[in-house]
Amino acid sequence: MSKLRCHISISLDGFVAGPNQSEENPLGEAGERLHDWIVALRAWREPHGLEGGEVNASTPVVEESLADVGAEIMGRGKFGPPGGGPWGDDPWPGWWGDDPPFHMPVFVLTHHQREPLTLSDTTFTFVTDGIDAALEQARAAAGEKGVLIGGGAELINQYLAAGLLDELELHVVPVLLGDGARLFDNLGDDEVQLGQLRAIEAPGVTHLKYRVVT
Amino acid sequence: MSKLRCHISISLDGFVAGPNQSEENPLGEAGERLHDWIVALRAWREPHGLEGGEVNASTPVVEESLADVGAEIMGRGKFGPPGGGPWGDDPWPGWWGDDPPFHMPVFVLTHHQREPLTLSDTTFTFVTDGIDAALEQARAAAGEKGVLIGGGAELINQYLAAGLLDELELHVVPVLLGDGARLFDNLGDDEVQLGQLRAIEAPGVTHLKYRVVT
Repeated sequence: MSKLRCHISISLDGFVAGPNQSEENPLGEAGERLHDWIVALRAWREPHGLEGGEVNASTPVVEESLADVGAEIMGRGKFGPPGGGPWGDDPWPGWWGDDPPFHMPVFVLTHHQREPLTLSDTTFTFVTDGIDAALEQARAAAGEKGVLIGGGAELINQYLAAGLLDELELHVVPVLLGDGARLFDNLGDDEVQLGQLRAIEAPGVTHLKYRVVT
Repeated sequence: MSKLRCHISISLDGFVAGPNQSEENPLGEAGERLHDWIVALRAWREPHGLEGGEVNASTPVVEESLADVGAEIMGRGKFGPPGGGPWGDDPWPGWWGDDPPFHMPVFVLTHHQREPLTLSDTTFTFVTDGIDAALEQARAAAGEKGVLIGGGAELINQYLAAGLLDELELHVVPVLLGDGARLFDNLGDDEVQLGQLRAIEAPGVTHLKYRVVT
């Protein structure tokens, strides 16, 4: 069966987004600082339609994370809008404009039913019957490729606690956010065992990769 | 001025000790797992009077952390006993028996006055007038050597928030404790800026070293 992977930027104090997420601050206050390292990279800028960028020790990590992924699962919090709730008559189209950077099927966990939304070559499918159902649909869509858990923290914690995640890579950024969305919240080791796969030092970030032992 | 350093083992979910610290579990439930990597090393076993042990990528990290340190400051929580409070008529002698492994002056932050305690070549001095006073005394005792903040979490957080720490090395262990003594609690980035110095991958642990920018 194809692997279920997650990779996410995290502050040294354990947050994957800052406090008070809003339309102005999708990643919460100061949360954008978690992504400074990746936005500087050509390997990230090119698929996002941006010019220039650096090549450094993070480059193969980012290239690897983009390769061999056939579908993404994300939480309603990542899709937005902040606050959640029913979709309404003029439903939120996501943060990413007319040409989202996913270029693959995306499955959004939500409590509120909605028809699929296709923008350019990305189709968002809204799943209301839980993380197992979302994984089943994503695996079918991904074929032989892997499935990515795109966040946020709450969704990753759910897949971890359920023993469904195979690999977790943390991009550890030397900032302290003090508050926000905490990874590993209320997950004790009775539920999750991790094995260290590798650590890669790069400018302004360290990449720590683990396998999840089930 | 000599450097103020801290290095400490930490779970992937940010705890430097597990929950419910007690005389049976000085590091809290499952907290001993934070130290499996170091207890296996010859570089740690030899100064603790134990035979055997491994040599691996952690060895130079541990040797470096033992070198050039002339005094340690620790919190009452690390010195013990669990629960704290007045010392009483038969005061607690620490966890370490007649020959503590420090072999240097140790300054214990406490709310309760007590005469110094000398065990073999370690003298514990009890400081009741705060972290600045403890640092001043430790620096005087250390001479040209550095001063180590030995923990626990609360004391490290205090020195971080006060902008007094120069270097912080985290030994990141792939375990989740779920609860316990959390490093960086209530420290936002307004107070503390960190710069990544290095990352070293080793068996069962990754060593992440930062300088604190003041």
